[in-house]
Amino acid sequence: MSNDLTQTDRSRLRRFHELGAHDRATIHAILDAEPNCTVAYVMDGAPYLTPTLQWRVGERIYWHGSSASRAIKAGKGHRVCLNVTIVDGWVMARSGFNHSVNARSVTLFGMAEVVPEDQKAAHLTAFIEGMWPGRTSVLRPIQPQELKATTLLSMPIAEGSAKVRQGPPQDEPEDYALPIWAGVIPTARSVETPIPDARNLGGLEPPEHITAFCARGRS
Amino acid sequence: MSNDLTQTDRSRLRRFHELGAHDRATIHAILDAEPNCTVAYVMDGAPYLTPTLQWRVGERIYWHGSSASRAIKAGKGHRVCLNVTIVDGWVMARSGFNHSVNARSVTLFGMAEVVPEDQKAAHLTAFIEGMWPGRTSVLRPIQPQELKATTLLSMPIAEGSAKVRQGPPQDEPEDYALPIWAGVIPTARSVETPIPDARNLGGLEPPEHITAFCARGRS
Repeated sequence: MSNDLTQTDRSRLRRFHELGAHDRATIHAILDAEPNCTVAYVMDGAPYLTPTLQWRVGERIYWHGSSASRAIKAGKGHRVCLNVTIVDGWVMARSGFNHSVNARSVTLFGMAEVVPEDQKAAHLTAFIEGMWPGRTSVLRPIQPQELKATTLLSMPIAEGSAKVRQGPPQDEPEDYALPIWAGVIPTARSVETPIPDARNLGGLEPPEHITAFCARGRS
Repeated sequence: MSNDLTQTDRSRLRRFHELGAHDRATIHAILDAEPNCTVAYVMDGAPYLTPTLQWRVGERIYWHGSSASRAIKAGKGHRVCLNVTIVDGWVMARSGFNHSVNARSVTLFGMAEVVPEDQKAAHLTAFIEGMWPGRTSVLRPIQPQELKATTLLSMPIAEGSAKVRQGPPQDEPEDYALPIWAGVIPTARSVETPIPDARNLGGLEPPEHITAFCARGRS
């Protein structure tokens, strides 16, 4: 399957729709649509990667983790690679080789910078507000020891690229004559009905920032 | 948010359900449920990562890419790190700090070995059959130049771990007294109605391997 989204071989690029869409608007839209990401870093010469969450503020990307985590310690001040991939469907072609994945993906490179102590609380608040506007105003405030236990890293959105593959299979010209069903099986991440914590106090209903998030139907 | 799934700090492990489920059955189930993965590798001392697809045969994991791709060339015979993460929901706690992500994640480490030429076709067939049983029998056969253009890598499932976080938020004991709505917003990847290629020959209907895949409802 032609699933290697970082593939840059020109003979394959031909067959992809819009692959190599490097513009910032595409990168921003993908980052804003999907907080889940993976961050790769190097420790003792070996590659590691960690799933985490990212958020964007202008031309910078942020992520965070426990100050004690190996991934955060290895990232600080070092080169990292961050990827967000949104899978949109399975592309069923007339040959195995031309099977593919419809996806939107961003890969960024850079040096992970530590967000200064006095800016951490504001950034963490912005992160949660970005996902669920209004939530932080109902939460118990951040405690100093929680801030201390959390490290925020960031880097400029400067090096990297977006790769977008959408649309039908791209088969070899002669394969279109074959009686083989081809097409796309779309996939999407759905948001389902919220499950209240059994320990919620009586009478609490999901606030508007929760119901609105669920009504949007995609996370 | 407590989203750092590779976090091993003991004070945080306490608060996670089932985190650190290292057993093979858990690892196999996660790998088998989600072909999408990211692979990290090191090139000139810097970390890179590539989204791709993985499949499992017994105690080995396989992935593939264009023989010309940078990621494949950098992986061959070198250490890689491979991660599969299935996001199951947003965990809405009573403090920002205890917000989390319900997820199943596997991270594997190892040396990427090249699958010998004479085994490639059988492995690629097994990969497609694993997802859509019966599909390869209706496809146009693999061509020698397609096999040549594709490199398969594999490694034993030997080093690594699974991390599983499920269930309600784990708040600080005193926070349960607060009138804050907490709970889980479940998310899932849905499979939607297949879109036939406009260039399909007349009269072709989606075969059983497509309708069964869609009926299972999750990819």
